Amino acid sequence: MEFTDYFPVWTRLTPEQQRKLTAAVTKKQFPKGSVAHRGSLDCTGLLLVESGQLRVYILSDEGREITLYRLFARDMCLFSAACMMRDIQFEITVEAERDTTAWMIPPETYKELMEASAAVANYTNEMMSSRFSEVMWLLEQIMWRSFDKRLADFLLQESVLEENAVLNLTHERIANHLGTAREVVTRMLRYFQSEGMVKLSRGSVELTDPKRLEALRAT
Amino acid sequence: MEFTDYFPVWTRLTPEQQRKLTAAVTKKQFPKGSVAHRGSLDCTGLLLVESGQLRVYILSDEGREITLYRLFARDMCLFSAACMMRDIQFEITVEAERDTTAWMIPPETYKELMEASAAVANYTNEMMSSRFSEVMWLLEQIMWRSFDKRLADFLLQESVLEENAVLNLTHERIANHLGTAREVVTRMLRYFQSEGMVKLSRGSVELTDPKRLEALRAT
Repeated sequence: MEFTDYFPVWTRLTPEQQRKLTAAVTKKQFPKGSVAHRGSLDCTGLLLVESGQLRVYILSDEGREITLYRLFARDMCLFSAACMMRDIQFEITVEAERDTTAWMIPPETYKELMEASAAVANYTNEMMSSRFSEVMWLLEQIMWRSFDKRLADFLLQESVLEENAVLNLTHERIANHLGTAREVVTRMLRYFQSEGMVKLSRGSVELTDPKRLEALRAT
Repeated sequence: MEFTDYFPVWTRLTPEQQRKLTAAVTKKQFPKGSVAHRGSLDCTGLLLVESGQLRVYILSDEGREITLYRLFARDMCLFSAACMMRDIQFEITVEAERDTTAWMIPPETYKELMEASAAVANYTNEMMSSRFSEVMWLLEQIMWRSFDKRLADFLLQESVLEENAVLNLTHERIANHLGTAREVVTRMLRYFQSEGMVKLSRGSVELTDPKRLEALRAT
């Protein structure tokens, strides 16, 4: 598969725009665990994921984290090119959760395209709307959902992503996803274990009763 | 002042687009306290504020609220036309905090314009980026800032908006802005009062030591 198959509005570009874009795009490899974009220090450009998995999160001054959303094949990371949009006033970090291959579109190339092409501008709108919706969902979760339900939801989602009932995740790592303290995660996981929903080992969590976790999530 | 002075990319529309837009726009009055848009029940259209003040907030199933941001003269409310954007998966409520006059652009008119005009699509992007940044700021506040600082910040901002050191706000109302319980607000305000920073009366809060509130906010 080529870049042209992945870029959603490719066929709506003029031949000249297609030529410029193809000439500017480069392919990047991000090994699992590496940082693909780090706040405003970088103006990385847009990342269009070919394969792999990226985690997008924010960092507090004290080094606390919370996951905003994940990006998979065919997703585009817009905010790694936030430097091209003066109205974006926040900083994200992007980390590869699996070995990831992505095309990088330089910010100035994309900006020129977006200003000339209503199709590209509207596609950018759609992308931003999707991310905005994910962040609004997260905000509602944080505000109005109890932590046991958020944790159950997270474990079930991870299990689907990993296609495995055993998750190789430390309590620290889970805390960074959910934006809380490690102790809070440990306490709740021990409660889940006492209820038979999970089994804890060093550096891993096994979902032993996903049905009950689903019931908890749904309440 | 006319609509054409308020609509930011007016001069970049074709005469035909200008004609269509002018024909479709209507002027609306929202008295203080009224609801201008209510979740997905409405597809109100875009609201371009001529004068007044709108509060945009979300509501939980249990009726809890949190303010996302405010809109003032020349601001445009995009998400009151969320029905035209399939990727927007959240629902906002918009309420007039002062008597407000706004132009309403029907969603189908705006959508047609946005699809045809890169200028309108890019302007829409900028608007969404600004709102996104405000919500990200809020998320960071909720996650990482203690409630005393958030409350001090809110009181100082309200005082600037109202141009008054006395705020006619109930504790319930403050709780709805900040997405917390009334009791939490009452407890913190009483602490502020004991420290001489505010003076509480029935239905109002007077800022008696804004300098100290500012110092608290800055910590």
